[in-house]
Amino acid sequence: MSDPRKPVFLVIGAGAGIGGQAAKRFAAGGYHAVLARRSDEEGLARLVAEIEEAGGSATPMLMNAAEDGAIEDLVEHVERDIGPIETMIYNLGAQIGNRSLADTPHRIFELGWRLACFGLFRLAHAAFPSMVERARRGGRHGTLLVTSATAAMRGNAGQHSHAAAMGGRRMLCQTLNAEFAPKGIHVAHVLVDGAVDSPDTLGKLLGDKYEAFKAKKGPEGVIDPAVLAETYWHLAQQPRNCWSHEIDVRPWTDVPWWNDNPNPEIDSKGKGFAGPEAD
Amino acid sequence: MSDPRKPVFLVIGAGAGIGGQAAKRFAAGGYHAVLARRSDEEGLARLVAEIEEAGGSATPMLMNAAEDGAIEDLVEHVERDIGPIETMIYNLGAQIGNRSLADTPHRIFELGWRLACFGLFRLAHAAFPSMVERARRGGRHGTLLVTSATAAMRGNAGQHSHAAAMGGRRMLCQTLNAEFAPKGIHVAHVLVDGAVDSPDTLGKLLGDKYEAFKAKKGPEGVIDPAVLAETYWHLAQQPRNCWSHEIDVRPWTDVPWWNDNPNPEIDSKGKGFAGPEAD
Amino acid sequence: MSDPRKPVFLVIGAGAGIGGQAAKRFAAGGYHAVLARRSDEEGLARLVAEIEEAGGSATPMLMNAAEDGAIEDLVEHVERDIGPIETMIYNLGAQIGNRSLADTPHRIFELGWRLACFGLFRLAHAAFPSMVERARRGGRHGTLLVTSATAAMRGNAGQHSHAAAMGGRRMLCQTLNAEFAPKGIHVAHVLVDGAVDSPDTLGKLLGDKYEAFKAKKGPEGVIDPAVLAETYWHLAQQPRNCWSHEIDVRPWTDVPWWNDNPNPEIDSKGKGFAGPEAD
Amino acid sequence: MSDPRKPVFLVIGAGAGIGGQAAKRFAAGGYHAVLARRSDEEGLARLVAEIEEAGGSATPMLMNAAEDGAIEDLVEHVERDIGPIETMIYNLGAQIGNRSLADTPHRIFELGWRLACFGLFRLAHAAFPSMVERARRGGRHGTLLVTSATAAMRGNAGQHSHAAAMGGRRMLCQTLNAEFAPKGIHVAHVLVDGAVDSPDTLGKLLGDKYEAFKAKKGPEGVIDPAVLAETYWHLAQQPRNCWSHEIDVRPWTDVPWWNDNPNPEIDSKGKGFAGPEAD
Repeated sequence: MSDPRKPVFLVIGAGAGIGGQAAKRFAAGGYHAVLARRSDEEGLARLVAEIEEAGGSATPMLMNAAEDGAIEDLVEHVERDIGPIETMIYNLGAQIGNRSLADTPHRIFELGWRLACFGLFRLAHAAFPSMVERARRGGRHGTLLVTSATAAMRGNAGQHSHAAAMGGRRMLCQTLNAEFAPKGIHVAHVLVDGAVDSPDTLGKLLGDKYEAFKAKKGPEGVIDPAVLAETYWHLAQQPRNCWSHEIDVRPWTDVPWWNDNPNPEIDSKGKGFAGPEAD
Repeated sequence: MSDPRKPVFLVIGAGAGIGGQAAKRFAAGGYHAVLARRSDEEGLARLVAEIEEAGGSATPMLMNAAEDGAIEDLVEHVERDIGPIETMIYNLGAQIGNRSLADTPHRIFELGWRLACFGLFRLAHAAFPSMVERARRGGRHGTLLVTSATAAMRGNAGQHSHAAAMGGRRMLCQTLNAEFAPKGIHVAHVLVDGAVDSPDTLGKLLGDKYEAFKAKKGPEGVIDPAVLAETYWHLAQQPRNCWSHEIDVRPWTDVPWWNDNPNPEIDSKGKGFAGPEAD
Repeated sequence: MSDPRKPVFLVIGAGAGIGGQAAKRFAAGGYHAVLARRSDEEGLARLVAEIEEAGGSATPMLMNAAEDGAIEDLVEHVERDIGPIETMIYNLGAQIGNRSLADTPHRIFELGWRLACFGLFRLAHAAFPSMVERARRGGRHGTLLVTSATAAMRGNAGQHSHAAAMGGRRMLCQTLNAEFAPKGIHVAHVLVDGAVDSPDTLGKLLGDKYEAFKAKKGPEGVIDPAVLAETYWHLAQQPRNCWSHEIDVRPWTDVPWWNDNPNPEIDSKGKGFAGPEAD
Repeated sequence: MSDPRKPVFLVIGAGAGIGGQAAKRFAAGGYHAVLARRSDEEGLARLVAEIEEAGGSATPMLMNAAEDGAIEDLVEHVERDIGPIETMIYNLGAQIGNRSLADTPHRIFELGWRLACFGLFRLAHAAFPSMVERARRGGRHGTLLVTSATAAMRGNAGQHSHAAAMGGRRMLCQTLNAEFAPKGIHVAHVLVDGAVDSPDTLGKLLGDKYEAFKAKKGPEGVIDPAVLAETYWHLAQQPRNCWSHEIDVRPWTDVPWWNDNPNPEIDSKGKGFAGPEAD
């Protein structure tokens, strides 16, 4: 059961990384956390248990965001049986590693869009009307935090599915903000431009190379999702007169997406020297 | 019948505007133009006739790019029965005017993606392998020109479907370029950041307000698609050592997408004055 | 006198707006604030008094950042007589309202660059070596927070001096970050994309129209610098594994810099409809 | 002597690379070329001789753009003694190779700004009034082509002076376009995002490593300035209804500025995998 006096924080994509840590942070801050993910009932139960042990409250949900009606049913169920949603985080990714165009089947390209772009549209479509109505009636503003990736800013080789989906996600955040910010809904696009220490994604992908990868990155060389959750919390608490719509994060030792390999040899004799006559 | 010595120029979205004018320009430049569009057999026949009267050659094709297999069949048919594709223009749009989120049904949002993003992926997926193979064997490089819109750069209110689809299109152009430029395929994203004098799109949309709209824009206030076709031609003729991947165009009197209404009152006392202390 | 156990927070451009409010926030957080500005000794004394009444400590400094050696002398004096600088905010602006090119004399264009771009370079040049050395020896990382303006992202009419200076400022933040982030210095570019409720800048500029301007903007329609100071605080406290380098802020009712006036009439029939054939 | 019926094409930064090749292209296209550069009177004479041998006409000018009044005197002299300027190319660079902040003295940072940003402002300030007046009286529109570099888009390590100056240059192009495009002056920012085969800049810099560098880049791996000159020509010939304000160019084998090293290992396990939960 959830305390009716608590605002609801809904997580779509509640793995043990960003989604789970955000749930813990908001639960600690007085929200009732609803954690939705596709699989790993045990992992979900573990997160809920940790939140409750810390004195918070949370509800686990299993659902497949790619299924028709799944997101819509979840929103309806939460609003009806748990409480009004104040803040949401859309945290579903669609990274499939690097695949050449030939190795990217139509259904994979489409699935990337369904998870990374269409699902966000469906969530806003289902949840915003009630959130807007509550803000209009003088309630606190609503917030949608969107976890995004480097591929939303530029398309690298092998990222056909991921970049096309994330590029659409970023533009969608801008159209949602343009229509709904003046109605009291804060949409923030969080560009996670570095590796996250997330056992359910990076950990599974790298398997036994995981620890070696982190070691190679050096001290604080991988984003701690519990630290990133503090930035999500800050964004959700910004008063209406000072909202951030786009922010990036990366470890101190990572090269930002806009810097190519800052190789002096290349840069002073190639790119950097392009074009103008030194005269 | 097409002259086997002519390179093939394939247009997806061959209306009387950009697509049709590009077909005329490339036909005049020695290409055999293949004009594909969904409807208006008469309009297509008219374009082909105009090209032939000018001494060029062209083939009309009716096809619905949103249908499974349509783009794939078209590419196979052209390569088998007409000739090897050297240059293509993907010119399908998905503008549906401005619609609030509530007025944007799921199927409309998906259709926008199918036409503006997925179709481009399918075209590259179907046509690039043969184009790469020909370039590898020492043939001239292949080219994919992509007509894009303002919504690829920023999402405005009411543009949920269009911006999400076009944002994905731009990132896809970057991933395609990253994988295929070094293999001899030139992908150029052409940001059309202004109204185009196109009877089949703007004309139909505005109906009897069309002439008034153009009059209001003033002399040369709307892009002439025949003029824009010269820029497409220039891009397709760039040698490999100097390729443009992103370019914008707009009429001289239009405000570019990155400038908001340059109102001195607002700008000197609002935005422009944001932030720093004048001290 | 400053408590040697307190880290130093240096403000360049300590007016009653962003700079002064940031000083209060960091003083409340345990820093000794050094407030530097060009003029208004009384205003400075008032800020210091408010900080001390709140139990904090601060030092006022008068200096003209445009003068040769002024920034260098300030840094040397603070490091020698007050304490090691841990965090700095560069908050000097160079907004001169809207001026046509003809009304922008060479000296004005140069002054804009001296205040908005060259001064930041000089501050980093003077302060970073000691900050890097302390970080290398295991101290907490150093931070440089840079207040920036809309003009850093796009140049509007009448903004020749301001935009050229701010565009340089943003690129400089990226080059500083590229060299110094891996050495433990966090540089954050804060894009203030809206009007700030700042008596010393906007207030002076608008004079008796100030209250009317704020009224027109509506509730929470102008950025409260004390609220923005919380975002500066959050950025300065981010651990090294999760640094933000670029973030924007604006009031909920403001149109972001990337959206032009979202006028459906214009957008569905002009820009939004540009380019692709609807077929 | 120049033929009074010929429009004037003024090159600021007329080395043997982009500037010289652009002068040849416009001279061949019927313009009288005025070639200005700081030094190498012999090189200038050689370029003029080549233009005249090809049947064109040109005037050599030696001038130091960093000197007060130099650009202003040049514009006045050309307009008075040679003919009305129709098209200009600002081609001065300020690349100094890669230098750490400590190795970038104040005067070097300032010189970069004087050449790359302030000089462009001065050229527009001096030449635009007459160009606007001629366009207003129904003459052909005027054009300012600005050669720019990768550093205008993002600041890499070691590029403090170059990136701050080029970032300012790009924003200045936008403010100039915002004020002057509606008055008939076309300003185009040409992002040269790759190495140019330019003996006076890259050649001098690399010395005896120049041929090895080009060999390593492979066939058509370095921009041929004569080819780039065709793109400048195309931009200058665009009718007013279809102007490009920003365009990029690079060799087919170069990685664009927005792609970091597309290393699958890094990208699928680091950046690309950032953020969202796969589940």
